[in-house]
Amino acid sequence: MVKQQRAIRTRTAIMTAAAGIFEERGYRAATISDILTAANVTKGALYFHFSSKEELAQGILREQDQHLPVPDRASKVQQLTDTILLHAHRLQHDPMVRAGVRLSLDREAQEVNRQGAFTHWGTVIRELLEQAEAQGELLPHIHVAQTADVLVGSFAGVQAMSQVLSDYQDILTRVTALLHHILPSTVLPPILATTEITPARAQAVAHELRQDSTHHHPEPAG
Amino acid sequence: MVKQQRAIRTRTAIMTAAAGIFEERGYRAATISDILTAANVTKGALYFHFSSKEELAQGILREQDQHLPVPDRASKVQQLTDTILLHAHRLQHDPMVRAGVRLSLDREAQEVNRQGAFTHWGTVIRELLEQAEAQGELLPHIHVAQTADVLVGSFAGVQAMSQVLSDYQDILTRVTALLHHILPSTVLPPILATTEITPARAQAVAHELRQDSTHHHPEPAG
Repeated sequence: MVKQQRAIRTRTAIMTAAAGIFEERGYRAATISDILTAANVTKGALYFHFSSKEELAQGILREQDQHLPVPDRASKVQQLTDTILLHAHRLQHDPMVRAGVRLSLDREAQEVNRQGAFTHWGTVIRELLEQAEAQGELLPHIHVAQTADVLVGSFAGVQAMSQVLSDYQDILTRVTALLHHILPSTVLPPILATTEITPARAQAVAHELRQDSTHHHPEPAG
Repeated sequence: MVKQQRAIRTRTAIMTAAAGIFEERGYRAATISDILTAANVTKGALYFHFSSKEELAQGILREQDQHLPVPDRASKVQQLTDTILLHAHRLQHDPMVRAGVRLSLDREAQEVNRQGAFTHWGTVIRELLEQAEAQGELLPHIHVAQTADVLVGSFAGVQAMSQVLSDYQDILTRVTALLHHILPSTVLPPILATTEITPARAQAVAHELRQDSTHHHPEPAG
């Protein structure tokens, strides 16, 4: 049990270090030896958890799927908005999320399956749009799969632009502006009128999830 | 005169070769010696035109600004749409444009000024939106600078997604879908009703510009 907890800690330390190195240098320039130094673990420990740089990158990309989702909301459009705002907030605050986004846009990471990041994120968004459609929240002309693709692609670009121009300082403003441009041609006006799309909402959702995770999964003692 | 024409040809050959190499390998992995081989020119010829890899990359990024603009249209929203569709068409067909976009999103090209690509493209879009606003084509709540930022950022992401998922095969479908989601919350409905936003329009505009450039700037004889 104690051994297993230590293994999980080591694995997390390696992934966090790798995320930092991938974020900073890109996939191709990052080396296992950089990651060993940053994680302060032995080569044996690293290879016990990950057989290659590729597997580490894949692990970071997969890590995105493990995040707690936004809790169910009565309005599925609000839940979709909260999911997107929370992702923007995580980009500002979580190096693992930043590394995942960077890897999925890194054309030099040729041996890494980068399509997965787009398709996973696409599935999450599409499912929320399907629920919104089933509840009659969307405009009747909407093709859910197409709208999901537009949201995923445009989010990827807006975050990249925020990274280049402000190192993510302005990401919440940019992402709310994006939603203000896309949701009015997607969502019924009365639904839109009660949807909160603000940078402050992103903070509130992140706070809510922190409370929630503390409540349901208390930190293991010592 | 003949000498000057030869110099222009050499410069173009070097830039085209560099575009191919940057596109394929990314900025950091590309070497001057790869570019020399691909362009089939001497080191002296290359350094006569470009003092470094950085200057070559900057030249390719600047090259984007030299393209013929879409001719004036009565509807500025149509002109904006045509400008965006034409850029998508060029991404499919022009390696220099692809290399420019790749460089502007390449985080390893740290010594290259990548903000320029976003801000130049942002200026083009903003000026067209300002003209549309002056003609009363936009919805009254629109902030032109914000809408321009949303269009530039979302286009960058949609093209990256198209590159990852289809190597640009589906870019025209994706970009028209993006415009179908953004223009209805930006443009007055009667203007929207007469705006053509289709993949076929992109082909037509590209064809129009080819005719135009042949007509106004006849190829210099042999």
